[in-house]
Amino acid sequence: MKAPKQVIEELNQLEIKMAAYKNALATMSWDGATFAPKNSVNDRAQAMGIIGGEAFKLTTSDELDELLKAIEENPQDYDKKAKVRAELLRRDYKRTTCIPVEEFMEFMSLQAKSSAAWEKAKEEDDFAYFAPYLKKVIGFVKSFATYFDSKTPVYDTLLDEYERGLNTIVLDEFFADLKAELVPLIRMASSSDKKENIERLYADFKSKKYDVNIQRELTGDLCDAISIDKDSCSYTQSVHPFTSGTHRTNTRFTTVYREKDLQMSVYSSLHEGGHAKYEMGLNPVDDYTCLSNGVSMAVHESQSRFYENNIGRSSEYSKTLYNLVKKRFPEQMAGYTSEDFFTIANRSTPTLIRVQADELTYCLHIMVRYEMEKLMFNSEIDVDDLPKLWNDKYEEYLGIVPPNNALGILQDVHWSEGLMGYFPSYALGSAYASQFETTMRKEMDFDGMLKSGDLTQINKWMSEKVHLIGSNKTPSQIIEDATGEPFSAKYYIDYLKRKYTKIYG
Amino acid sequence: MKAPKQVIEELNQLEIKMAAYKNALATMSWDGATFAPKNSVNDRAQAMGIIGGEAFKLTTSDELDELLKAIEENPQDYDKKAKVRAELLRRDYKRTTCIPVEEFMEFMSLQAKSSAAWEKAKEEDDFAYFAPYLKKVIGFVKSFATYFDSKTPVYDTLLDEYERGLNTIVLDEFFADLKAELVPLIRMASSSDKKENIERLYADFKSKKYDVNIQRELTGDLCDAISIDKDSCSYTQSVHPFTSGTHRTNTRFTTVYREKDLQMSVYSSLHEGGHAKYEMGLNPVDDYTCLSNGVSMAVHESQSRFYENNIGRSSEYSKTLYNLVKKRFPEQMAGYTSEDFFTIANRSTPTLIRVQADELTYCLHIMVRYEMEKLMFNSEIDVDDLPKLWNDKYEEYLGIVPPNNALGILQDVHWSEGLMGYFPSYALGSAYASQFETTMRKEMDFDGMLKSGDLTQINKWMSEKVHLIGSNKTPSQIIEDATGEPFSAKYYIDYLKRKYTKIYG
Repeated sequence: MKAPKQVIEELNQLEIKMAAYKNALATMSWDGATFAPKNSVNDRAQAMGIIGGEAFKLTTSDELDELLKAIEENPQDYDKKAKVRAELLRRDYKRTTCIPVEEFMEFMSLQAKSSAAWEKAKEEDDFAYFAPYLKKVIGFVKSFATYFDSKTPVYDTLLDEYERGLNTIVLDEFFADLKAELVPLIRMASSSDKKENIERLYADFKSKKYDVNIQRELTGDLCDAISIDKDSCSYTQSVHPFTSGTHRTNTRFTTVYREKDLQMSVYSSLHEGGHAKYEMGLNPVDDYTCLSNGVSMAVHESQSRFYENNIGRSSEYSKTLYNLVKKRFPEQMAGYTSEDFFTIANRSTPTLIRVQADELTYCLHIMVRYEMEKLMFNSEIDVDDLPKLWNDKYEEYLGIVPPNNALGILQDVHWSEGLMGYFPSYALGSAYASQFETTMRKEMDFDGMLKSGDLTQINKWMSEKVHLIGSNKTPSQIIEDATGEPFSAKYYIDYLKRKYTKIYG
Repeated sequence: MKAPKQVIEELNQLEIKMAAYKNALATMSWDGATFAPKNSVNDRAQAMGIIGGEAFKLTTSDELDELLKAIEENPQDYDKKAKVRAELLRRDYKRTTCIPVEEFMEFMSLQAKSSAAWEKAKEEDDFAYFAPYLKKVIGFVKSFATYFDSKTPVYDTLLDEYERGLNTIVLDEFFADLKAELVPLIRMASSSDKKENIERLYADFKSKKYDVNIQRELTGDLCDAISIDKDSCSYTQSVHPFTSGTHRTNTRFTTVYREKDLQMSVYSSLHEGGHAKYEMGLNPVDDYTCLSNGVSMAVHESQSRFYENNIGRSSEYSKTLYNLVKKRFPEQMAGYTSEDFFTIANRSTPTLIRVQADELTYCLHIMVRYEMEKLMFNSEIDVDDLPKLWNDKYEEYLGIVPPNNALGILQDVHWSEGLMGYFPSYALGSAYASQFETTMRKEMDFDGMLKSGDLTQINKWMSEKVHLIGSNKTPSQIIEDATGEPFSAKYYIDYLKRKYTKIYG
């Protein structure tokens, strides 16, 4: 039997090697999304396939299995960190090795075809063309979840994959609360007397032009405002904004620059900046181990939403943002007050497309997807019936009906790739952020800090309660330890009610 | 014994795998030079070390050795391409496997220390501090060359590494010819009556400001002008301009943008554009084999110099460039004619620093280094005597003496890293370019094409005679087949005399 010290040393070396492969893949993928010439797609795909295959061998290697067993079988010889590492690595190991190789290969091949079919179906508004692929994808996802855990209901296994410990009991309650409170709130905003003025203000703001090179400078100002160390984090643009990090010192995000949409780059930068701060704030002692990762999709999203919405779209911080924007675009901002800027940033109206949704309506888009995913996995719904169901739900929750499936059920790529159980984390992230804010409000003069523009104490709180924890705790434990109570939808609902009553009430 | 078809198939797969690793390394290295945040240097170095180690295992693997043996031992069973591949791969295999592993590791560690020592020595103008490292580096380079080939003089082995077939007999003649003709030409230019006017014109041009964002657009115009397909080649900026290519479709170059130095970005873009055209013009049938590489440093440099100098700095093409620049910078160009533009681009004056040298004096900088490298390896010179020798040669060839070693012998990084035998290819590249030009002049109305700005036929010539050949022939064979005769310095000297007599005569 290997001595524990030896086991940890070997595990460290193996994780460093795994990290090197992840680094290569992340860099190639980043390059592909930002800078690489268009025609390089096949060259990169081939290289990433090969490097990815080697990385896969490491994460499913007997060497890893034996090191994990050594820890699992003699827990008394190892400290807490070692045990959490073993648990996390075992999850990943099991998730991939539990699937027969041929089935996995078959699914990879289906994924590629299914994504292409989805793209075509979306383009041609032809759900029937995509339906048989979706049926097959659901079949694979079901059996993979069952291989991993044959006792738990399939959809709970899927939810747990993206958010450890999450299940339909938690989410049913969460979305029931949201539905009860948000649907009336959205109705109120839609029929508000103030709506017309807000729409006019918003349209006027959108009619102006904002030089893209200057917007780029503004992104730098925003990084400074939320204390992003630019020596450890770069930024550029891409088609969809995203953040990528291989190490605390090697983080980067993208935003989108549109000449006629200043808000796009401002709030995308704050959103991705929030993700980047999480990556940069991980604990150095966990470097190059699986503990040095954002703990989950939803907790990651809590960071991005917090900097984008709880800070960036607050009435108090809008003044700081307004001043930063005015400095770069004095002419365009001449006719607006910082209150206008706040109102414009929070203009709400029900729309068909999730990624364009405002803060108030966003969660209802997610709720539609959650309910449909539950039906896919926990009952015997026919895939062909999904579009009608989708449209009915949009009408019920948002009061609008997609005129076609391209603007309806075909809008998101996720299902074509087998990413089921992933959507709820988007909504959870916002709710976590508000629960964090509520606790901060008890511990410090939150509004005063936002007004002053000095986020030092807020950043410090987030660093200590979330960033430095990395994956040492479960998501729910992080929420509970940070806020003193288990997760609850209440704070998020209160936050939205307070804000939107102020604007539209 | 494996069937030849099987051998080739396995070699193809192995080369595809090697290419994937090279792709990962090239992308990480590119990212590091262009976009990555400053603090990421250690994270990237660690990952590249690990990925590089895996790549090294492939290029020195028994698997490769056996496949090569199969071809080497039964040449009659294989076509020409297979045999050239075996020859090229064997060279690389031998070069690395001939060195005892411990010695190689020791050298890697020395390299890092020596580079750091060089940097410090340069900063503090302290050659004595660097000298002991340089002595050790020379020692390692000598023994590595001897391991590779104990019969050939060391310096010839080094030259051959960067330019297959090159040796001191060829280079002695080359540099003797250059020296005889260029030293008087440089004297003529330095004492020319026209010098004062040219200097004034040049200083005036340099006093203007050129918006960097507009320079960036101009780089795009230049790509179009020399027919670079931007869907297969991206460009951005970095501290030193360079080109990187992993595949015909995945090429990228950098340039340098300085607000007060338009020429820097214009001629760097044409230079790197020439490199990029070579990478993009490789033959698709050679994809993912070692045949799909620029054949040598010097031939690569012939492409960059050709587009930068033979085209870009020609009196005939200057009109096209002038018009492109004028369109982007109408105010700044208002006071100049296209003849001025040509003159400014070719202003020549002896300077101390190689990378800032103009076309006329450049090769003499290389000659100094060549002569010193010969002394290092073929005679018993004391490293401590090198600075004096350096300064004497600068005085003799260029008529100027470095005031200190930082501006003299310590200016280049190459020797600290053991890159000896590399410098001559810079000069050879220019000479190759002029020999190509001379042949083109016989086969087409070269000046007429430059004047028209339509480079179609010139590009086609270069594509057929150089790019598509890749590494299927040796450098000297490429020159001979393209121009109908062996390499000669004559055409380069004629070219420089013609141009500089026109400007300064």
